[in-house]
Amino acid sequence: MATPATRILMGVNESSMKGYPHPSISSRNAFDWTLSKLIRTNYSGFSLLFLHVQIPDEDGFDDMDSIYASPEDFKDMKKRDKIRGLHLLEYFVGRCHEIGVKCEAWIKKGDPKEVICSEVKRVKPDLLIVGSRGLGPFQRVFVGTVSEFCVKHVECPVITIKRKADEAPQDPVDD
Amino acid sequence: MATPATRILMGVNESSMKGYPHPSISSRNAFDWTLSKLIRTNYSGFSLLFLHVQIPDEDGFDDMDSIYASPEDFKDMKKRDKIRGLHLLEYFVGRCHEIGVKCEAWIKKGDPKEVICSEVKRVKPDLLIVGSRGLGPFQRVFVGTVSEFCVKHVECPVITIKRKADEAPQDPVDD
Repeated sequence: MATPATRILMGVNESSMKGYPHPSISSRNAFDWTLSKLIRTNYSGFSLLFLHVQIPDEDGFDDMDSIYASPEDFKDMKKRDKIRGLHLLEYFVGRCHEIGVKCEAWIKKGDPKEVICSEVKRVKPDLLIVGSRGLGPFQRVFVGTVSEFCVKHVECPVITIKRKADEAPQDPVDD
Repeated sequence: MATPATRILMGVNESSMKGYPHPSISSRNAFDWTLSKLIRTNYSGFSLLFLHVQIPDEDGFDDMDSIYASPEDFKDMKKRDKIRGLHLLEYFVGRCHEIGVKCEAWIKKGDPKEVICSEVKRVKPDLLIVGSRGLGPFQRVFVGTVSEFCVKHVECPVITIKRKADEAPQDPVDD
């Protein structure tokens, strides 16, 4: 097969219930769906690009129990964030490696929707896949979803993988 | 490969510039993209379902040159519409047949966005693919797009294939 592999960029994030290194239900769903429905057994025909966007902690009180006594403590915090993100990506890279699908993974800081759009511009994937928590119309008004923003602003085709209703945690805060 | 083929439902329409039997630029784009980027050489791993929604002619003056002298004339009109739709589907079915991808195609009458959503409920595809004319924000306010409606209302994952700017006809009415 002479044609280059189809490059799929996937935005992945951690579970806000279990935290790092656990991927969110919607990220895992999107990944499993991509494997079973698109890649199927054509492992060499696709390459997966995993992007994890870390949201900067606006008020700096992400770690209430930590003591910051020197500039090094802040560096440590940044390092810890990075390590956590790496553990998340390790899950996806590990699974790709087991199956034999080529992949790359990286971390960026910023607003997920903006970072995803700018990374799409930069790496020019054939397809962007994002998971969606499947918020109801009421929640959507306030939250606005990353997926909706991407569908509107990104040049390449976008698939939004919605989570099924029965996979949602009872309290959305736990998501 | 024991797993059932990935079933992709594609909404296709005719070119409003050239009319039947010519598929619209966005339908052809969506089809070509699906072949080259998703199906690739895995022909047996996918089956394509083509749905063409014919918009009922509200005022009945679709064919200004026709003479309606008896109820049969109206039947003829309906028959003609159907034949035109069949020619459109023939294009896609023919190409699938050449390549060796299993497919099915059918026609429904109604509002495209509503018919597509109800057909997704009925046939339960793994993925819905719709082309989009890539209207600007100004046009979008008035027109509302089929693709945006489907992304919101359909259970399965949806890909919207946007048309590139340089593929748009100069006058949007010709589209």
